[in-house]
Amino acid sequence: MTGMKIWELGEFGLIERIAERLPSYRADVRAAVGDDLAVLEWDAETYQLATCDVQVEGVHFARDTITALQLGRRAAAINLSDIAAKGGTPEHFLVSLALRPEIEVEWVGQLYDGLAEEASRYGADIVGGNVSRTEGPLVVDVFLLGKVRQEEVLLRSGAGPGELVLVTGWLGDSAAGRVLLEGEVSGIRAEHRRRLVDAHLTPTPRIKEGQVISGSRWATAMLDLSDGLASDVAHICDQSGVGVRLWADRLPVSEEARRVLRQLGRQGWELALGGGEDYELCLTVPSGEQRAVAEAVERETGTKITCVGEILQATDGRWLVLEDGREVPLQSVGWDHFNGPDNGDWRLGEV
Amino acid sequence: MTGMKIWELGEFGLIERIAERLPSYRADVRAAVGDDLAVLEWDAETYQLATCDVQVEGVHFARDTITALQLGRRAAAINLSDIAAKGGTPEHFLVSLALRPEIEVEWVGQLYDGLAEEASRYGADIVGGNVSRTEGPLVVDVFLLGKVRQEEVLLRSGAGPGELVLVTGWLGDSAAGRVLLEGEVSGIRAEHRRRLVDAHLTPTPRIKEGQVISGSRWATAMLDLSDGLASDVAHICDQSGVGVRLWADRLPVSEEARRVLRQLGRQGWELALGGGEDYELCLTVPSGEQRAVAEAVERETGTKITCVGEILQATDGRWLVLEDGREVPLQSVGWDHFNGPDNGDWRLGEV
Repeated sequence: MTGMKIWELGEFGLIERIAERLPSYRADVRAAVGDDLAVLEWDAETYQLATCDVQVEGVHFARDTITALQLGRRAAAINLSDIAAKGGTPEHFLVSLALRPEIEVEWVGQLYDGLAEEASRYGADIVGGNVSRTEGPLVVDVFLLGKVRQEEVLLRSGAGPGELVLVTGWLGDSAAGRVLLEGEVSGIRAEHRRRLVDAHLTPTPRIKEGQVISGSRWATAMLDLSDGLASDVAHICDQSGVGVRLWADRLPVSEEARRVLRQLGRQGWELALGGGEDYELCLTVPSGEQRAVAEAVERETGTKITCVGEILQATDGRWLVLEDGREVPLQSVGWDHFNGPDNGDWRLGEV
Repeated sequence: MTGMKIWELGEFGLIERIAERLPSYRADVRAAVGDDLAVLEWDAETYQLATCDVQVEGVHFARDTITALQLGRRAAAINLSDIAAKGGTPEHFLVSLALRPEIEVEWVGQLYDGLAEEASRYGADIVGGNVSRTEGPLVVDVFLLGKVRQEEVLLRSGAGPGELVLVTGWLGDSAAGRVLLEGEVSGIRAEHRRRLVDAHLTPTPRIKEGQVISGSRWATAMLDLSDGLASDVAHICDQSGVGVRLWADRLPVSEEARRVLRQLGRQGWELALGGGEDYELCLTVPSGEQRAVAEAVERETGTKITCVGEILQATDGRWLVLEDGREVPLQSVGWDHFNGPDNGDWRLGEV
């Protein structure tokens, strides 16, 4: 058999092929492959949410730049972020580990401490899992269950033309932290370096922010930013059947991240669009509601919200307005685990 | 840090250490780390079951002896078996894959076909998952959700002294199939070889059998046999606070498996106790009920049930009665992914 290899198809292409092959779903499935996670009927008022996300050594982390405690927190946080994207409440973790025999018991203990610390911060627990031997890269695979009120759930599919695109927090800090860890840039002040590296190693899942947003009933669609805004907003476009226009000069890039970028000769918006792994929330709201949503989230959580674009008709396409006013097609520049960004020039770190 | 390595502790020792470190569970957790899977409150009559089990290349499978379709079926079956052990009904799979970029798209498609085929055979679906790049061994990690009526759930902790130990089907076929795949034995007739190899590559989860057993209300404890009866029955002893006596001459070993064993100069019961990966069910029932349970299961499913031992007081220990009548301590000879069986002599295949 000498067919197409998965690197030729890329992560999203592969997922599409897989989804096409799956038979029909059971009657209690509200959303499945194609959204952040599976949405299942719990009772008349409640959905159960189920998600999984993996950390593979050499792809998502390197043991010499992350402690076991940090890795545990990170693996938990990335799954919590999927629940946050639905406005849900996390409940139960299962953890599946593939470990080399020479790994120290204390390292595994610290990993679990990190997982449990991050889980309990959001009221969740670890109820089971699995340990297996491997002779290859360590694998930390996490499975998370949660719940959300049916009337508050936010899918990727609810956005409509004329609405606005908002994001929580800062974009690009995580990618800047990754650049610093890889040693490509030096001369950054210690406290700035620490903030950026922490944003990369132990991102903060926006659980409370997601709940405030979904509880407000103003938002129409939401997801979490794992691959980078350019790539992730395309999922909203695909699932909602809409187009989008993002404004480069509105993207919330921190001064610390800009400093790192300047040393690389890059623009802040490149990192915000393509850097990935920010785990901020991206949502759409009807025009006119953005101020109320932003105020509610800032008041309840202290996290700022920024308006970064607008939803168009699908036929109007997907665009990025550059800082000089030029409008260019919004290409997918996200973090694709097999292919990397479409434009190799934008490549930042491993893909 | 130069502490103890996980291979020194072994799989079960490691799981114990992890369990000790976990903070308390949420109020809706009925059973968690230490049982086959997590048992969670669904509503007043129903528990939700959540489990995960992984297949790692080079540890659980080799790509030159299993097709992608078979691997998909196997990965699903092993998780289904955990649900069977509780008398439950499987519902939703999530599948997490770590793949090398040069893997063919068609191979991944076949893997999913196998997963979906096995899932739909038992009424379950695949609702999500994750694909990641790896540069190491392929990893197929499967999470499965199911349900069971609260009054019918069977845990590892319900066995009492004076009860009998029963098992479904045959023990040792899977290990004999593994021996054949590894090429240690030849001269076995093609149809026998096929049956044993199939038992290893694509085990049959005993979903219906588990439901008949749990529905009968006679059984007091149940688990599935993944590591080998000697090791697995020890979990019932640990969790129920009892001892056990197994009879070597009663262990159900097929004539085909015995033929393979004879060529290795081994007794059938060695494979039945220590071979592992049979995915049959092991249950305990009050003395006097064994015939009714066996008849119900055979009538409803065609699967035979064999009485292989009796439950003792914990202080009476754990014993194996050999075929010549001698009684020896029942050591753990199961499949431990890090350590291997306690007695290296019993080692069959990789551990």
